[in-house]
Amino acid sequence: MINGIQILDKRYKLSSGAGSDSIHTNPQYSYAVTQLTDDKGNSGCGLAFTLGPGNELVCEAARFFAQKLVGKDIESLMSNFGNWFKQVSNDQYYRWLGPHKGVVHLGLASVTNACFDLWAKTRKLPLWKLLTELSPEQIANLLDLSYLEDILTRDEVISLVQQQQVHKEERMKVIREGYPGYDTSVGWFNYNDEQIRENCKKAIENGFNAMKLKVGSVDPLRDIHRAEIVREVAGENARVMLDANQQWTIPQAIAICSHLKNMNPYWIEEPTHPDDILGHQLLAREVAPLKLAVGEHIPNRIIFKNYLQAGCASFIQVDALRVGGVSEFITVSLLSKKMGIPVVPHVGDMGQLHQHLVLFNHISLGLEKLFLEYIPHLRDHFVHPARVRNGVYETPMEAGSSCDLRDI
Amino acid sequence: MINGIQILDKRYKLSSGAGSDSIHTNPQYSYAVTQLTDDKGNSGCGLAFTLGPGNELVCEAARFFAQKLVGKDIESLMSNFGNWFKQVSNDQYYRWLGPHKGVVHLGLASVTNACFDLWAKTRKLPLWKLLTELSPEQIANLLDLSYLEDILTRDEVISLVQQQQVHKEERMKVIREGYPGYDTSVGWFNYNDEQIRENCKKAIENGFNAMKLKVGSVDPLRDIHRAEIVREVAGENARVMLDANQQWTIPQAIAICSHLKNMNPYWIEEPTHPDDILGHQLLAREVAPLKLAVGEHIPNRIIFKNYLQAGCASFIQVDALRVGGVSEFITVSLLSKKMGIPVVPHVGDMGQLHQHLVLFNHISLGLEKLFLEYIPHLRDHFVHPARVRNGVYETPMEAGSSCDLRDI
Repeated sequence: MINGIQILDKRYKLSSGAGSDSIHTNPQYSYAVTQLTDDKGNSGCGLAFTLGPGNELVCEAARFFAQKLVGKDIESLMSNFGNWFKQVSNDQYYRWLGPHKGVVHLGLASVTNACFDLWAKTRKLPLWKLLTELSPEQIANLLDLSYLEDILTRDEVISLVQQQQVHKEERMKVIREGYPGYDTSVGWFNYNDEQIRENCKKAIENGFNAMKLKVGSVDPLRDIHRAEIVREVAGENARVMLDANQQWTIPQAIAICSHLKNMNPYWIEEPTHPDDILGHQLLAREVAPLKLAVGEHIPNRIIFKNYLQAGCASFIQVDALRVGGVSEFITVSLLSKKMGIPVVPHVGDMGQLHQHLVLFNHISLGLEKLFLEYIPHLRDHFVHPARVRNGVYETPMEAGSSCDLRDI
Repeated sequence: MINGIQILDKRYKLSSGAGSDSIHTNPQYSYAVTQLTDDKGNSGCGLAFTLGPGNELVCEAARFFAQKLVGKDIESLMSNFGNWFKQVSNDQYYRWLGPHKGVVHLGLASVTNACFDLWAKTRKLPLWKLLTELSPEQIANLLDLSYLEDILTRDEVISLVQQQQVHKEERMKVIREGYPGYDTSVGWFNYNDEQIRENCKKAIENGFNAMKLKVGSVDPLRDIHRAEIVREVAGENARVMLDANQQWTIPQAIAICSHLKNMNPYWIEEPTHPDDILGHQLLAREVAPLKLAVGEHIPNRIIFKNYLQAGCASFIQVDALRVGGVSEFITVSLLSKKMGIPVVPHVGDMGQLHQHLVLFNHISLGLEKLFLEYIPHLRDHFVHPARVRNGVYETPMEAGSSCDLRDI
């Protein structure tokens, strides 16, 4: 029975330039942490990610939701987590402050993630293992599918997961082989040309053949110049992703993409405002064959549904620390599977939680094993930092979701 | 020069059943209040609206933005308010918590509205008068038009307002005649049949020929039955609006609307989740000729742009206490004008502020003078409660935006 709730506001300093992009020039990576304990001595740790100031608001929202867990048995809760999620995410007062977005939904993410962590630790299993052993019905029970009725019903979820059982064993080999990573940190916005060149070399040496560059400069020539550096150092066969972090207007995005396509980017990430679904639709048509990646700032399954229906997202970057946690992440993954679009999470958790979730997505949902973002800046703060060797995430074997922080 | 900032968390009890809808069954109407004072003894009061719990989060967010006003001269600020708004709404830390939605954007609404109130009081003018006397350029300077470049540029704003100058004098007659109201309070969700019948009679006696009923019952027959009562009492010529407050799924909405159309509703309000733009598009096609009204929970100009582009909203119910305040309200009104769709605000302010804004919309932007929602439940708490006689809002003549609360 859950009998202890602790909410912690943890903020970490980054080294100069790290984490910078065209919009967020000086971030302080921070977590609103939900720590649950039960009467048997088990604990669960869940995270929501922010950039520093305002983290306290997310903590307050997390406290609101976490208090509703006191007295609950974790197995009983998780046997029908979708119902609980639907109920609390529609709390009449907090719903007004969203609905299902912003501070309140970030707070719920932290709490949901703590529930999944506690569940896996109670069973003494890594989260990926717990999830991949669930039956289709048990998976469906985790999910709140409301407002998706026009595209994904409970029956469809069950039959979709059922269909994927056939080649599940074969896909289990990813456990031995590990899940490919990509290096996000070669080209933060504030890094100079020399740093980028050095970082690209190191990324290649470390076994990555995919990496990301931040774009969205006031002077488009700076973006083009830096993109050429990355392509030159990484070589023609590397995948290079460009990330504008919402900085461009639609006309700006169209103009600069006509130049950036020369260096053959693998995707263009967050070209403009994340709320502008029809803007992305226009943009996707205009910049084709360039592909768009979105999701870092998309807060819930309903907006993801719209993006998928609009046919403009070629990569879904749902983040379990932005949507309402692991369960809504799975819902969005199922929507993506149905629509035939790969899921490549944004990792507000630095990949700690998502290394479990992409294994589940691949093994149980049959989603493509593409690659998972890797950001090393907070690794010293985690009890079990993700082990990335030769550009590959090694499968985590500790019980839980690998989100425990050292200083808690 | 602004030298005083006070943020207040005000919550008001409602009488039994008042304010209830299918989602919000027991609301406590509340304001996150921003109170500004300057060194000349002027004050400005701005509001954001919530339903009680969580109001403290909005207050915290308002404090964050309000502190950025200390030392600013109000005339200088308002001569280019759009720039200030763009800058603070894109604060790198708070932007992560939205962007431009949820708790942080509600906080900004409260602060923006306080700026407009202070501005009007400093000039000793009712807000509607101040706004209607602005030049097209001065109006454009109030606005942050970023992320609208594909549909509304600064030049288009200026020329659109310029074009409307021709018949402005003629439309000024609304000042003498007043602005029509509609009665929202005849059919709150928890009212029984007899209360609804009584309230409809009273509404007609009080001169209203437009009123609203809350729908979204678990049993659709209850909705149909209650809608028939309202139509019967109000008569064939009254406009009756039905409000589902997001309760329906798309399939449910399609099914029930096929029955509700028999009583000829003037609009169907918030049929489903406010994030589901393409869902509304599908729905609008399926339920035509019924018309959809949306906006109460739409947080910013970018999502309104999408709704207008999707062609599924027949009435835009933008609320200056939900979007980032008066300036973003004006931006959304301009978008609506350009797309030929009427603006009928949701009134989290009980109409206090919006009575000024609909006058501006009609006189300066040439938007249709349709009607403004009227909710009397908080009137005793305002220093200058809106005067609605014979179903018509009388033009407010006090300086400011009529948002001062008695107990501050």
